[in-house]
Amino acid sequence: MKRVLLTGGTGFIGRQAVRFLAERGFEVHLVSRKQESGRKMGIHCHQADLFDEETINDLLKKVRPTHLLHFAWYAEHGKFWDSSENLRWVAASLSLLLNFAAAGGKRFVGAGTCAEYDWTDGHCVENQTRLTAQSLYGVCKGGLREIAQKFSEQAGLSMAWGRVFHLYGPYESPARFVPSVIVPLLNGEPALCTHGQQLRDLLHVEDVASAFAALLDSEVTGPVNVASGRETPLKDAAALIAERIGRSDLLRLAARPAAADDPRRITADVKRLRDEVRWRPKYDLESGLQEAIDWWKEHGFKEAGPARRRVPS
Amino acid sequence: MKRVLLTGGTGFIGRQAVRFLAERGFEVHLVSRKQESGRKMGIHCHQADLFDEETINDLLKKVRPTHLLHFAWYAEHGKFWDSSENLRWVAASLSLLLNFAAAGGKRFVGAGTCAEYDWTDGHCVENQTRLTAQSLYGVCKGGLREIAQKFSEQAGLSMAWGRVFHLYGPYESPARFVPSVIVPLLNGEPALCTHGQQLRDLLHVEDVASAFAALLDSEVTGPVNVASGRETPLKDAAALIAERIGRSDLLRLAARPAAADDPRRITADVKRLRDEVRWRPKYDLESGLQEAIDWWKEHGFKEAGPARRRVPS
Repeated sequence: MKRVLLTGGTGFIGRQAVRFLAERGFEVHLVSRKQESGRKMGIHCHQADLFDEETINDLLKKVRPTHLLHFAWYAEHGKFWDSSENLRWVAASLSLLLNFAAAGGKRFVGAGTCAEYDWTDGHCVENQTRLTAQSLYGVCKGGLREIAQKFSEQAGLSMAWGRVFHLYGPYESPARFVPSVIVPLLNGEPALCTHGQQLRDLLHVEDVASAFAALLDSEVTGPVNVASGRETPLKDAAALIAERIGRSDLLRLAARPAAADDPRRITADVKRLRDEVRWRPKYDLESGLQEAIDWWKEHGFKEAGPARRRVPS
Repeated sequence: MKRVLLTGGTGFIGRQAVRFLAERGFEVHLVSRKQESGRKMGIHCHQADLFDEETINDLLKKVRPTHLLHFAWYAEHGKFWDSSENLRWVAASLSLLLNFAAAGGKRFVGAGTCAEYDWTDGHCVENQTRLTAQSLYGVCKGGLREIAQKFSEQAGLSMAWGRVFHLYGPYESPARFVPSVIVPLLNGEPALCTHGQQLRDLLHVEDVASAFAALLDSEVTGPVNVASGRETPLKDAAALIAERIGRSDLLRLAARPAAADDPRRITADVKRLRDEVRWRPKYDLESGLQEAIDWWKEHGFKEAGPARRRVPS
């Protein structure tokens, strides 16, 4: 019996992960601060605060998960990079991992980030590219990964670490890149972008979630980039969105300055994900962006616009 | 007013640090799980568990320390390298640092270790030698340092990190290298050593404590090796001890195999400590070892021997 405890299961990636885990035969136990009514979907929901070690420990002893998929973190857009909340999440994650191992857990997969890498070159290869995080978020995720990996080796725990790159899709903050183009255009307003020459690896959040489920269900260990492997200039993605919406006339590239420290390139080598985890995305960029456009059409683009005038990279 | 909260103040280094802090004009607040009766020495003792965040937070708000000197950690000889307690101490240390900053703290100094460095070459230089810790202890100390340093930069906290090398002196576990030679020889028994060709940097614990007090009282930031700068083959230190005790006849070099992974060399560059902190040791190797011999003569070498037959390096 594969039994997974899923943290952050109501968040951006986690909410998408539930069904992929269920499809792979996991008995899914979702832990969340909020009361969830997920039992009808065949998953088990537990209301608990990850900062309350005692309650979490009791939950682990009761559920006895074989697997732990840990997405929960502080993720408020624009604030998470520098927030001291990152330190609290390192501490809570270490407690969680210790108690999971003590309760007989076998495999742990955590959510890392491309921000763990040095971005000087910008092409990120696991176990090769230097890990010189620039942000507190990247340093905390990287520090947690290193400690968790060493601990897992010693405790006989199988452990992998999915490094998330640039993702988009349902329930995304309207201030993030993809909705910052979609929402104004759907509202018939100009989409004010930077030069858009930044190279990024964009992946639909549903694919990110499905890749994590595949990673959890594999025996692959260590860091694994979770990305498409395709390098896209942001201006091309913006142009594609505008074309699909039929408002290329409203796309304004170079209407705003990019941040001084905005990296030219952040792209991913995906050999491990493709050849070791043997995972393939469902969406390519075109179909993924179309899906995102359709979602915003159905889910309140009017309320979300005018989008905040900031294009994160 | 300089007001320091000292953790681990009843431990191997911390107990020695109290008077150096007082000499430098710090109002010393010692926090310990055990009840201490230090008020008579002019220091303030607080009984609290560093794992009890609420109590520690109340203490910080009451004391409002300007400085934090953090020695507390899991340190049981022979066990601390691999123990999962290291993870709990990372978590507790992050909470402590966050709450110290929130309570208006200005400067944090933590105790790191030479085990944070890659030992391939063995000569360790701050901000230069690769940080590839081999042990869970080293990984946890290194991860904490990296997170604390980034957080401090952002929070406007001044922070330094003293990396401790090989120390010896009063109240040391009899299983550690220096007492493992002193104790049997004082008991008229043979001291069974390894080949002793390991190169180490040995520093008397009183000097380690005095260096930390100087570091805390300086404005130097980042990692600083706390060591003598002198490279000593362990066999020379053993010979010196035997000679001082007058029992060179009982010294048995190469009587036991060294551990297969025992590093040939672990030595320290001390430019930062000497030129930036402007600190000098009180003891050289000869006077330091003599002091250790005298301490064991007065403090139960009979009860401690026969020493456990293990020479840590």
